[in-house]
Amino acid sequence: MSLRIAIQGVRGSNHHQVANDFYGKDISLVECLSFDALVDSLLEKRADKGIMAIENSIAGSIIPNYNLVYHNNLHIIGESYLSIHHNLMALNGQSIEDLEEVRTHPMALLQCKTFLKQHRHIKLVEDVDTAETARRIQAEQLTKVGAIAPKMAAKLYDLSILAPEIQTIKNNATRFIIVKTQNKELPKEEINKASVRFVLDHKRGSLATVLNVMSDCNLNLTKIQSLPIIEHPWKYAFFVDVTFNGYERFHKAKSLLEIMAEEFRVLGEYKNARL
Amino acid sequence: MSLRIAIQGVRGSNHHQVANDFYGKDISLVECLSFDALVDSLLEKRADKGIMAIENSIAGSIIPNYNLVYHNNLHIIGESYLSIHHNLMALNGQSIEDLEEVRTHPMALLQCKTFLKQHRHIKLVEDVDTAETARRIQAEQLTKVGAIAPKMAAKLYDLSILAPEIQTIKNNATRFIIVKTQNKELPKEEINKASVRFVLDHKRGSLATVLNVMSDCNLNLTKIQSLPIIEHPWKYAFFVDVTFNGYERFHKAKSLLEIMAEEFRVLGEYKNARL
Repeated sequence: MSLRIAIQGVRGSNHHQVANDFYGKDISLVECLSFDALVDSLLEKRADKGIMAIENSIAGSIIPNYNLVYHNNLHIIGESYLSIHHNLMALNGQSIEDLEEVRTHPMALLQCKTFLKQHRHIKLVEDVDTAETARRIQAEQLTKVGAIAPKMAAKLYDLSILAPEIQTIKNNATRFIIVKTQNKELPKEEINKASVRFVLDHKRGSLATVLNVMSDCNLNLTKIQSLPIIEHPWKYAFFVDVTFNGYERFHKAKSLLEIMAEEFRVLGEYKNARL
Repeated sequence: MSLRIAIQGVRGSNHHQVANDFYGKDISLVECLSFDALVDSLLEKRADKGIMAIENSIAGSIIPNYNLVYHNNLHIIGESYLSIHHNLMALNGQSIEDLEEVRTHPMALLQCKTFLKQHRHIKLVEDVDTAETARRIQAEQLTKVGAIAPKMAAKLYDLSILAPEIQTIKNNATRFIIVKTQNKELPKEEINKASVRFVLDHKRGSLATVLNVMSDCNLNLTKIQSLPIIEHPWKYAFFVDVTFNGYERFHKAKSLLEIMAEEFRVLGEYKNARL
């Protein structure tokens, strides 16, 4: 049986592209219309692994997804970067002037702000996915409606591209993580990146002390994000990604951080995709 | 002439509430339907000050707004926290079952996910503002359409609240910043918080070194957020907020950080609103 990969969205979405990049084409796709549904498919064992967008260069971290990983005890077993290309598409024969509304994923709306501003007659409607809207336009023969989706979706669902590459920032890389319910995927020798979460008191120098330990253990920080903890006004949670050469360095840091920080947890150990 | 305060959204929005909290009711509101429009109103001197949501406990930092402040050389002169309450409202006589769509700001949709999931017959439509939709429902007598907005909007636009307090996380504090085009607003004695941005090379320990300096100068970190710089794959930008007792401590840290970090810039010096 081929690997069951859960994606946010449907065939033709960016998540589908990442699934192909990471696992090849011989996979069985589990299409999910929200990140919550994606997590459910993993917890209920309807999928083996899930692909989840986690940050991009415009909106930064997708904090709700960090929280989904954390609260559902998922493990990050890999990462993948995709350069995002947004294209405005509609049924064959439609022009931009014909369009009364454009439906797509909120993130795509945000990333095409400048282009959409030039076409103020178009109503912007938030939808669950980029490619799913494209699929529906074809299935229901929706005129006057456009989708913003990857080129792959135009091809799959036989739509015309009215405007290609409409993303505001042309070089827009999004980072995706691959998650599953059990830990351990790679042999230690192949692991050179990890995502951790810990909590610190709002005390002068508390973060500096932790980062000093990481630095002493030869870990490189590639990402840091603080998040206030609603229930505890004077505590902060930190999501931190580090890269390293040699698992023993990370192992040493872990032992120290477990003592120094509260609620220290490894969210994933995996292979750095950006070299 | 009363102070001209630019807000994202219209009368009755959360931004309006913050404007009242910070400057009282004797102000002249400049309603803007996007954060870009808000910045324009400041740059074109149609408004004296602007109110901008900058982070909340669910979605984290609103990175595009950090970038607006940074790229337009705005100065943060204050901050304010507001506990957000979302309410579903419609024309008098309508029930939840009558609604075919709910329109509101994307952040409100995100923050009411759990409630909206229970009403899957309702189509979710992204709109520019919470209160603006409420205003329009009344002005155009839109049946079958609901808005998610603050209570103040229901009162101002004479709508019925069909479901109060529908936000998923009940204690949802959003942080707003007050911005203007020129620096200097407060006397040094009143300043005890600052927002800075700087760039570091992806080098082991580079952030730890900077945080050590901050800690040595008795600065307390209240927020940190890294952001990859698209054009320079090995550099990271950091947005950091610090609190301190005594401006001279921050002044000393500034002199050091200007030497240690690249592109160091103070985005604002102001009074801590959370004590």
